Amino acid sequence: MSWDEFGLIADHFRPLSLGEPGAFALTDDAAVLSAAPGRDWVVTADALVAGVHFLADDPPGLIAAKALRVNLSDLAAMGAAPRAVLMTCALPETLDRAWLAAFAKGLGEDLQAFGVVLAGGDVVATPGPLCLSITAIGEAEGGRVLRRNGVRAGDILAVTGTIGDAAFGLDAQGPEAPPELDAPSRDFLIGRYRLPCPRIAAGRILNGLAHAALDVSDGLFADIRHLAETSCVDIVVDPARVPLSDAARAWLALRPADRERIFTGGDDYELVFSCAPEDFADIAARLDAEGVRATAIGRAETGQGRLYRVDSGERKPVEGAGGHRHGGENGREG
Amino acid sequence: MSWDEFGLIADHFRPLSLGEPGAFALTDDAAVLSAAPGRDWVVTADALVAGVHFLADDPPGLIAAKALRVNLSDLAAMGAAPRAVLMTCALPETLDRAWLAAFAKGLGEDLQAFGVVLAGGDVVATPGPLCLSITAIGEAEGGRVLRRNGVRAGDILAVTGTIGDAAFGLDAQGPEAPPELDAPSRDFLIGRYRLPCPRIAAGRILNGLAHAALDVSDGLFADIRHLAETSCVDIVVDPARVPLSDAARAWLALRPADRERIFTGGDDYELVFSCAPEDFADIAARLDAEGVRATAIGRAETGQGRLYRVDSGERKPVEGAGGHRHGGENGREG
Repeated sequence: MSWDEFGLIADHFRPLSLGEPGAFALTDDAAVLSAAPGRDWVVTADALVAGVHFLADDPPGLIAAKALRVNLSDLAAMGAAPRAVLMTCALPETLDRAWLAAFAKGLGEDLQAFGVVLAGGDVVATPGPLCLSITAIGEAEGGRVLRRNGVRAGDILAVTGTIGDAAFGLDAQGPEAPPELDAPSRDFLIGRYRLPCPRIAAGRILNGLAHAALDVSDGLFADIRHLAETSCVDIVVDPARVPLSDAARAWLALRPADRERIFTGGDDYELVFSCAPEDFADIAARLDAEGVRATAIGRAETGQGRLYRVDSGERKPVEGAGGHRHGGENGREG
Repeated sequence: MSWDEFGLIADHFRPLSLGEPGAFALTDDAAVLSAAPGRDWVVTADALVAGVHFLADDPPGLIAAKALRVNLSDLAAMGAAPRAVLMTCALPETLDRAWLAAFAKGLGEDLQAFGVVLAGGDVVATPGPLCLSITAIGEAEGGRVLRRNGVRAGDILAVTGTIGDAAFGLDAQGPEAPPELDAPSRDFLIGRYRLPCPRIAAGRILNGLAHAALDVSDGLFADIRHLAETSCVDIVVDPARVPLSDAARAWLALRPADRERIFTGGDDYELVFSCAPEDFADIAARLDAEGVRATAIGRAETGQGRLYRVDSGERKPVEGAGGHRHGGENGREG
């Protein structure tokens, strides 16, 4: 790609910043964001690499939206209200202006959908694959956030939505896909992988009602283990209660051996949370009013950070992280 | 590189977060930063790619420090006090633990030197070159920042430090280096390229006294043009007054034809600022007390965003951006 980066930014990215006067239309060295009294800032950053976190020939608008959404999902898991993002793009020379226009269009539509503005960033060239990094900035009342380490013995453990769709959605694009799978189920699963829905409204409801939360990105069991470890409790999960979509059920009917992918696959970006048993019905009703289903899948016990599963009444420790690696090595810092 | 990313983060990056309780030791989905009353936030992000912005075999600690410093330089140019950074690293599989340990050590030492903590980020694998992205977060009293668009007709235009060192420092590592150049000059120039010094104290002094500022990253003339364009004034620069280091003079004594590199090379990360003529002596004295030399190199006139140079009394427009491209395409958003 041979372009004038300043022109590119003016054409494609400047319009995405116009909701925030302090972004100075992306013409300055940095942006200024005023802090509302009593509100603290919640910040997170994630990187995505072509061929590792998405497919290089995925539609550019979807790549942009996914990069945004995985970051907003981290804010959702903390119960924060998203406000602005900064994005750096390392772009291969092979990309053309049409690709970039579609990328910026998808980003802009998604930013608008979530009420977030682009406050800054950087565009550079790379001889390697497309590499995106987004920092998401949210706000929380008086610094009150949903931490991972708040699970208490006796808590119910629950998830939003359905689990495992994204893992099958990834597989559905490769040679592992069962050819008999009906097209609507296949499309649904691929959509869940390509375009996760950050549970922002759910996170804000849970903030103050739930004891702990995180988003399912590394894999259900790996992520629940993070809750158990940081909270110093044992968690017991009933795999039979993990909620599945109709499409995931259709996949499993054809491929029963893939059942464990539900628990080890990642990228669903649903929330796992814990709460007092007496609060669960109220929380579930409030989430339901936002169109989000909550399903209890286990409980926490006094312990030392271990994860157990109960299959047909038999309790077994879950060994190893069982974590999804996005096709490569992957981890999360903050 | 085959590693456990969570272990890697715990070993190498967690210690860098411990100055900020709201970073939760990098164990949560996001960090919480409390806002001091009356202070707004200044945010900026830059990406650096191996082979484009630094050499892949540069010492890892220096790569980390440079990535940090180019971001802190953007905060300096706004007159903000740096507080925290988030960093995402896309790491090639070929890097080993020793490389990463040295990288984290260099980052940690530099974070400490600038009083900044690591508040979060992400570590992912890439089949391509090392790609780093840093978001820097600073604070400014009541949102008062140094903008680019504040140059007024009649202002003096000045720079901190010396200009052109980084361009020669880049050249000094390639076949263009004059073999007769003395080793101390060569080392000085390479050091200026590899490890820029963000002018944070200078920026904070200038904030409120100067009318506008930015940092010299794309090239002196290209950056001054940004000031002229965003401020809608003409700027006239006297190239003979641009301050040079002894090492840059030594280079030019051997290679007089390289003189234009002073004005078109980038990466010096000095500040260019404008101020009222009657304020310059006071500003220069305050900067001098911090060990920073300020040199007047031009003036602003009523106009329409053009840049002129005066050589031997003859005024000529400077055509084209004359911008440095870090060996590749590059630009800056925010």
